[in-house]
Amino acid sequence: MILENDLVIIRYSDRVYIKRVKKGESLNVKSHILKYDDIIGKEEGIFLNGFFVAKPTLEEIVKYGFKRETQIVYPKDAFYTTIKLDIPSCKRILEFGMGSAVMSAIILKTMKEDAILYTHEENQKAYDNAIKNLKTFGFLDDRLKATLANYNDAKYDEGFFDCAFIDTKEPWEYIDKLHKELKPGANVCFLVPTYNQVSKLLESLKDKFFVYEISEILLRKLKPNPDRLRPEDFMPAHTAILIFSRNINHSC
Amino acid sequence: MILENDLVIIRYSDRVYIKRVKKGESLNVKSHILKYDDIIGKEEGIFLNGFFVAKPTLEEIVKYGFKRETQIVYPKDAFYTTIKLDIPSCKRILEFGMGSAVMSAIILKTMKEDAILYTHEENQKAYDNAIKNLKTFGFLDDRLKATLANYNDAKYDEGFFDCAFIDTKEPWEYIDKLHKELKPGANVCFLVPTYNQVSKLLESLKDKFFVYEISEILLRKLKPNPDRLRPEDFMPAHTAILIFSRNINHSC
Amino acid sequence: MILENDLVIIRYSDRVYIKRVKKGESLNVKSHILKYDDIIGKEEGIFLNGFFVAKPTLEEIVKYGFKRETQIVYPKDAFYTTIKLDIPSCKRILEFGMGSAVMSAIILKTMKEDAILYTHEENQKAYDNAIKNLKTFGFLDDRLKATLANYNDAKYDEGFFDCAFIDTKEPWEYIDKLHKELKPGANVCFLVPTYNQVSKLLESLKDKFFVYEISEILLRKLKPNPDRLRPEDFMPAHTAILIFSRNINHSC
Amino acid sequence: MILENDLVIIRYSDRVYIKRVKKGESLNVKSHILKYDDIIGKEEGIFLNGFFVAKPTLEEIVKYGFKRETQIVYPKDAFYTTIKLDIPSCKRILEFGMGSAVMSAIILKTMKEDAILYTHEENQKAYDNAIKNLKTFGFLDDRLKATLANYNDAKYDEGFFDCAFIDTKEPWEYIDKLHKELKPGANVCFLVPTYNQVSKLLESLKDKFFVYEISEILLRKLKPNPDRLRPEDFMPAHTAILIFSRNINHSC
Repeated sequence: MILENDLVIIRYSDRVYIKRVKKGESLNVKSHILKYDDIIGKEEGIFLNGFFVAKPTLEEIVKYGFKRETQIVYPKDAFYTTIKLDIPSCKRILEFGMGSAVMSAIILKTMKEDAILYTHEENQKAYDNAIKNLKTFGFLDDRLKATLANYNDAKYDEGFFDCAFIDTKEPWEYIDKLHKELKPGANVCFLVPTYNQVSKLLESLKDKFFVYEISEILLRKLKPNPDRLRPEDFMPAHTAILIFSRNINHSC
Repeated sequence: MILENDLVIIRYSDRVYIKRVKKGESLNVKSHILKYDDIIGKEEGIFLNGFFVAKPTLEEIVKYGFKRETQIVYPKDAFYTTIKLDIPSCKRILEFGMGSAVMSAIILKTMKEDAILYTHEENQKAYDNAIKNLKTFGFLDDRLKATLANYNDAKYDEGFFDCAFIDTKEPWEYIDKLHKELKPGANVCFLVPTYNQVSKLLESLKDKFFVYEISEILLRKLKPNPDRLRPEDFMPAHTAILIFSRNINHSC
Repeated sequence: MILENDLVIIRYSDRVYIKRVKKGESLNVKSHILKYDDIIGKEEGIFLNGFFVAKPTLEEIVKYGFKRETQIVYPKDAFYTTIKLDIPSCKRILEFGMGSAVMSAIILKTMKEDAILYTHEENQKAYDNAIKNLKTFGFLDDRLKATLANYNDAKYDEGFFDCAFIDTKEPWEYIDKLHKELKPGANVCFLVPTYNQVSKLLESLKDKFFVYEISEILLRKLKPNPDRLRPEDFMPAHTAILIFSRNINHSC
Repeated sequence: MILENDLVIIRYSDRVYIKRVKKGESLNVKSHILKYDDIIGKEEGIFLNGFFVAKPTLEEIVKYGFKRETQIVYPKDAFYTTIKLDIPSCKRILEFGMGSAVMSAIILKTMKEDAILYTHEENQKAYDNAIKNLKTFGFLDDRLKATLANYNDAKYDEGFFDCAFIDTKEPWEYIDKLHKELKPGANVCFLVPTYNQVSKLLESLKDKFFVYEISEILLRKLKPNPDRLRPEDFMPAHTAILIFSRNINHSC
């Protein structure tokens, strides 16, 4: 049931809004009005005057709710990576940088109760925004260890981490440390935006990480018109390149 | 550590094998030999004579380990859907049909300890294969309620399910029942392979489900060669179309 | 050499302009100024203050010069179709509708001196705009027979046309006539925007046209930055579906 | 009309054959037989026992008829480039290397009667194959000047060429010469397969060529089934990256 102060997602045609509903307030889209008094106290899934109202999904929260200090990890990339890394099976998960905490939020949601996410962000502004995003939308709990620092300045035991998600500008600067602090065989995803970075990263991974997949994901959406079914006119052409690798056993 | 009888993934160049390692046995690829005696007792992440050996990820198990009675749900589609449906937040999850149980396995891995997956498969052969896949690879537990039946022949309380994944040939045959047995606002993904099915499904969803996204995912892989970086020569052009919708509140 | 009143293409960063250069005039982009007096009398290919100036290519003329009364045929689709239909080998070419004459212009440019393009447009406004586009940019000549009419109201001899390009809303309305007025084996491209149209068209073509390819073309552009090479952020996700077929011999 | 010794394209389901028809001979596909005696003397566009028979298009000749000594330029890339370079408007066209002469054939077909294609191939085996392909399928005429040499060893006047198509491994080795021998503003397409080459080429073009587009073309085909419309299962993920640029006026 939608209660006052609940967070809701409101869709009207192509537009999407994430809002906290307050009595007496309303949303006005192209001279169509959704009065919050008409939805408070109702079960979610409301379809009224062309507005659809429901509680936001995880995706809607990170996509429409999170404030962005940086380029975010797109849901298509984040979702693929989360299961590819098999986050539900990992106990100690390494992440850096946090960016706007999209990936942190999804990992926290997906990992088990006894798992810990160790995340790092060296930029104060990004860190503050990331933590605020997590706090505002209820993702903060004891399973998160967030450090305001460059990963190279943090210290972990050898073979400490089960897996890692690395979204940083110069990932090749961290390979020796990663090789040491990750378990043998640990699954690692690097996210970079340019082909030059892929080449440079691949060079740095040699003999330390086994690269088993490099992927770009294109998401092509269709317009929901049954009589004139066709894709949307535009789509993102590029968000990120994902490099999946596994830590090579030191004794090899 | 890799022990005798452990399941391992073995990669050699473009080839991938999933095997149980037995003492005295070996894998022979293009006259290169990997003796299992050389890997038993070692930490995973072994890189030896061009072979990479580790414990299989969730993806590798469903992709290379599962026997296929039917077209499987591809990892790219399954992973996206799993987080899009926010499976970790759902307590009662509906699925039909099971197919080869790829999606069942990923849902079971991702959902919480107190959640239940109610899955349905009416084809005896597919059902047996699906259950066998889950059993062989350790996915079976009390959180799975698998029924050998068409979903239309099963009976659930009104508003019972939190979300649903529907992979069946004529999904429009189930809309009234779904509308009733899903919670208001419940998130539902339909998977179909053809555009005709999308059109017909969209017609059937009117006034009962709010469609918020129809997507096709293209996964373009790059060859891991830093000096000659380029995409692979071929890629899947089509696996499935994913229709994401939310159950409209009955009182609307 | 660029002379006064010449048509030029001017590029500045991501922006593109097609202009006629006049003495004393200038182009002002984000407070950068290109004085036409500085380019008149110079060889084309001028790179000055961040502006690139040259005579427009065929593509630039139809893309930036042509006025649009309708959705245009995109260069990527038009170029592929033109050579696929082997326009340089065709003597009598059929087209309808003209739309904004993008395809007419490209066909006229590509076909041989002794070929004739028979084009049809039933909408007066579109027709006027199409002819004006062709005239303004110098494509009009005796090899064009443009008719303000629906193709069904025009009359041609049996087996008259060597090939055809059909861009109309209900192409299935013309199949019998096309089958008759095209040469046996004639190459025909139908352009439609929706999957429903493809299905309906395919039904109508049975036993009369042999469909040998149905294609969608995705053009993914890269940003021209050698140190940070990556695709552009967005791309068209959809413009048209192209159905290529050949006329079946009547006696079959 | 199909005569004895004519070249025909024969399609049967997904299979495509290019053949010269001889009396008394036949084509046998999966125990279905096409007797050439049944098609000789008939108009093309024959649809008989599931076989479709017609005279080959330009595309079918280069794709199925040409022998390949090297990776060919794909039709999707060749067609786009041909019109993008506005070949029908060019009088002196430069090409190197010839490869298997796919692009040479398409240029020869598309350029005007008074134009000349100057093409270069330094590898004897590739050259012989290219010339043989052109000869076998009737593309050879006086408008072709083919040189068995590296372009750097050929000599042309300053500002000689109207446009160029460059398909060579190290295109950056030719930039100064190209800059000089191409007209100011001349349109040039470079084709390379890797991202590293794109970066290196872009560096070399600085101040000499203005890059206005870098493209990859993805061609996604649909299966011609009206009731179950869907894309084909696989598609080429990569063939080439096309860099389009224009020669900068020397005096700039």
